Amino acid sequence: MNQPAIKHALNVKRADDFAQWYQAVIAEAELAEESGVRGCMVIKPWGYGIWERIQKLMDAEIKEAGVENCYFPLFIPLSYFAKEAEHVEGFAKEMAVVTHHRLISDGKGGLTPDPEAKLEEPLVVRPTSETVIGAAMARWVQSWRDLPLMVNQWANVVRWEMRTRMFLRTSEFLWQEGHTAHADEADAMQETLRALEMYRAFAEGPLAMPVIAGPKPENERFPGAVETFSIEAMMQDGKALQAGTSHYLGTTFAQAAGIRYQDKEGQQALAHTTSWGVSTRLIGGVIMTHGDDDGLRVPPQVAPQQIVILPMLRDNDGDEALLAYCEEIRKALAKQSAFGERVRVLLDKRPGKATQKRWAWVKRGVPLILEIGGRDAEGGMVSALRRDKLWRADAKPNFVGQAKDEFIASAAAELEAIQTALYEEARARRDAQIVRDVTDLAGLKTYFAEGNKYPGWVEMGWSKPTGDALDKVVEQLKALKLTIRNTPLDAAKPEGVCPFTGDPAVEKILIARSY
Amino acid sequence: MNQPAIKHALNVKRADDFAQWYQAVIAEAELAEESGVRGCMVIKPWGYGIWERIQKLMDAEIKEAGVENCYFPLFIPLSYFAKEAEHVEGFAKEMAVVTHHRLISDGKGGLTPDPEAKLEEPLVVRPTSETVIGAAMARWVQSWRDLPLMVNQWANVVRWEMRTRMFLRTSEFLWQEGHTAHADEADAMQETLRALEMYRAFAEGPLAMPVIAGPKPENERFPGAVETFSIEAMMQDGKALQAGTSHYLGTTFAQAAGIRYQDKEGQQALAHTTSWGVSTRLIGGVIMTHGDDDGLRVPPQVAPQQIVILPMLRDNDGDEALLAYCEEIRKALAKQSAFGERVRVLLDKRPGKATQKRWAWVKRGVPLILEIGGRDAEGGMVSALRRDKLWRADAKPNFVGQAKDEFIASAAAELEAIQTALYEEARARRDAQIVRDVTDLAGLKTYFAEGNKYPGWVEMGWSKPTGDALDKVVEQLKALKLTIRNTPLDAAKPEGVCPFTGDPAVEKILIARSY
Repeated sequence: MNQPAIKHALNVKRADDFAQWYQAVIAEAELAEESGVRGCMVIKPWGYGIWERIQKLMDAEIKEAGVENCYFPLFIPLSYFAKEAEHVEGFAKEMAVVTHHRLISDGKGGLTPDPEAKLEEPLVVRPTSETVIGAAMARWVQSWRDLPLMVNQWANVVRWEMRTRMFLRTSEFLWQEGHTAHADEADAMQETLRALEMYRAFAEGPLAMPVIAGPKPENERFPGAVETFSIEAMMQDGKALQAGTSHYLGTTFAQAAGIRYQDKEGQQALAHTTSWGVSTRLIGGVIMTHGDDDGLRVPPQVAPQQIVILPMLRDNDGDEALLAYCEEIRKALAKQSAFGERVRVLLDKRPGKATQKRWAWVKRGVPLILEIGGRDAEGGMVSALRRDKLWRADAKPNFVGQAKDEFIASAAAELEAIQTALYEEARARRDAQIVRDVTDLAGLKTYFAEGNKYPGWVEMGWSKPTGDALDKVVEQLKALKLTIRNTPLDAAKPEGVCPFTGDPAVEKILIARSY
Repeated sequence: MNQPAIKHALNVKRADDFAQWYQAVIAEAELAEESGVRGCMVIKPWGYGIWERIQKLMDAEIKEAGVENCYFPLFIPLSYFAKEAEHVEGFAKEMAVVTHHRLISDGKGGLTPDPEAKLEEPLVVRPTSETVIGAAMARWVQSWRDLPLMVNQWANVVRWEMRTRMFLRTSEFLWQEGHTAHADEADAMQETLRALEMYRAFAEGPLAMPVIAGPKPENERFPGAVETFSIEAMMQDGKALQAGTSHYLGTTFAQAAGIRYQDKEGQQALAHTTSWGVSTRLIGGVIMTHGDDDGLRVPPQVAPQQIVILPMLRDNDGDEALLAYCEEIRKALAKQSAFGERVRVLLDKRPGKATQKRWAWVKRGVPLILEIGGRDAEGGMVSALRRDKLWRADAKPNFVGQAKDEFIASAAAELEAIQTALYEEARARRDAQIVRDVTDLAGLKTYFAEGNKYPGWVEMGWSKPTGDALDKVVEQLKALKLTIRNTPLDAAKPEGVCPFTGDPAVEKILIARSY
């Protein structure tokens, strides 16, 4: 990829304009860019490399759970959707519809769909695959012996969002969607919670992004789901990002698609299904959790490169020895193991001044940067920079001079330390920004008042109203630009009364602004 | 996945109906099935597992060549295509077109595209991505320093084929598409040939599928390409399968998209681009190259599981010891390395008789099958079956009794021997079915006459006519249901005259029936 003109810092700070800062990081770290196709982005090598790391680690977890990867059609006939009213209701407004299968000249040097090639039944570009996978499950499931049936696919999906933001909300995005069928509710719910826990552990492990897991309120459920669980992460602006969801679908889709099996008593029964997914949105979460005013900081476990070596080339005959020294270090580092995998290290020989290239890598957030000059080579030394500790590019970055062998021997431990440090930093910030002493609407108003910089989340008890009563609560919160994120699985028992209904509080909920 | 009722053999033999046999293998090996969505298939776990192996090995080759993975939009605006006439001409007839972004009720319980949500500019679902990637390259390339620019994506593409066949020709298929931009023709052609050689080595290595590489005739070029190279594999019915292509695109797409750079002299110049791809079609090639009348035989390098262990469970208390013995063997095998990777071994504990399960695995084509009974466990023995040697399921399969440790120690070598044996078998058959003594049209007629079972390919000299003269040749061959596959790069110099033009022959071409 071509190097952008290197600025030593982003042109905007988080504190000044978080939304602008987010866009700046994506541009300066060369993660992605607008494609010119409405709402669709181009994911560039460094951004896609992070996604490949997410895929590799998550796919191993999915297979470990006995879920098998398949691939299902991109297109879904309208009639499949029509079978499940609630599901249609939820997605009909944002579906890309294929109506023709041929183009002809429009006579003005352009092209137009051929009226002679109109599809009898329009096809929808999948926004999610419950309906088409349900149809396959109906073919595959006959007996209780066929259950549980657990499949997953890594795929692109399309939801025609009106307002898009790179990684967070794009018309097309990449994700994995797991779909499972079970004999009964207990087994299906167990799988729903297993996937939720897999996501929690993944977010807090490889992504170093603390999350809170729990069921969403009724009004926030996936269209057609009986229960939707989410993991919610707090971004540096205090807003909540729904980073993954797991749904218990009851027999809704089994009914619509006809997923029936003969149970051990020989009776016909409907399967209970689940679905769960995470997407490229996770990359947006990584940016807003770990980015700083110098750009991105990528957690070592998902960094496409964990260590970058920058030789201070002088375009003289000393360069050869310097490069040999750097290559020797690269080889030695590539033999080390961190997080149970080989260390990923790049020797960046591309043209350009090392100090210039330094800032490109700082902005991309590679965990460790080595700058090596002729004198280091002669003295068997390296200068190492821990990206997570760098603060403000206009200050002098704190490179540490170290003996080569000492650095190599400690590199893996250093990477693991960076992973932990990023998690602890995010965890401490998140915990400090969850308040529990707000107990009524007036308190919410005050806490989330404009001007009140970086408010976080409010955890409060409520009476878990449903139907119209819930709608009223949602309206009141909406007036404050607030939403209920979920009911933390590990929250303490509530006390007192529900600020919305006056009834006794039965559980705690998280209230926040959100993406 | 649910087990099909186990038949000990396919219900059709290759010699009787090759096309029917192909469908039977796909069904019985549980590779894929029709999805109910026109022309789109569902790729099932065993079939997708083979694709995952292809992706893993090919992706490593692509990265090794310095090509970076990205992701580009699924949708392409019509105006992008309109820029390159020849390209449009080649694809316009088979494009899925998105015209609406919302559905509404049709009043009859169904759904219909919302006329209020018609797109101003229709979008095409990518049939290939030269145009949209070219637009990105135009943004990324400014100076000679930005070249070569080499990217790749693993993606789904859609070509609205009228007659579809699973894996070989489907409306949607999965592939990788490499796209590179270079300063001049020499550099671009070098990359075009590098990709071609990568494909040749991949087909003949991991896929054990011999191929012949060379440039396609002018009439078979990719729409917009200056030169198209292909690898051609011979299926067991003697037909040719184009298994991969690499294109030198000249400045065609650079012109259309505006990929210009400032050269070392400060002059503006057009980049020269290439593109190259292989798809899930390779799986069709594996089936028709290695399948036999018992089902599929998967080359060990791309087999999702290389060894399957089947315990002969008796539902008595001997089972526990038997399973422990099998698990011990599984662990030991999983520590072995073949082809530089850990051996992939599965202990299949699923319910069902081992002899029944045996045939399911035989049809899937797992390279080595171990059946282990109580007596084996007591005696420290195993019974091993080499799938590539099994012939006709109605004959007794030749299981070989072996001491457990001896089998474990030799397993990796055995897998590598199977890989070689499959290649040699296919190579010998292919070579025997290329005839070089046919020198005229009459000879072609005779060789490819109906009734003449399993004809192969004819390699003959020609004068390499172009334009109208070539069209005439193509017509004459078409009348015999024949096509020119390519000009083998390593063919001997031709002698005599061209049977089509009477002019001196200048090169050799391969003539064949094809998929």
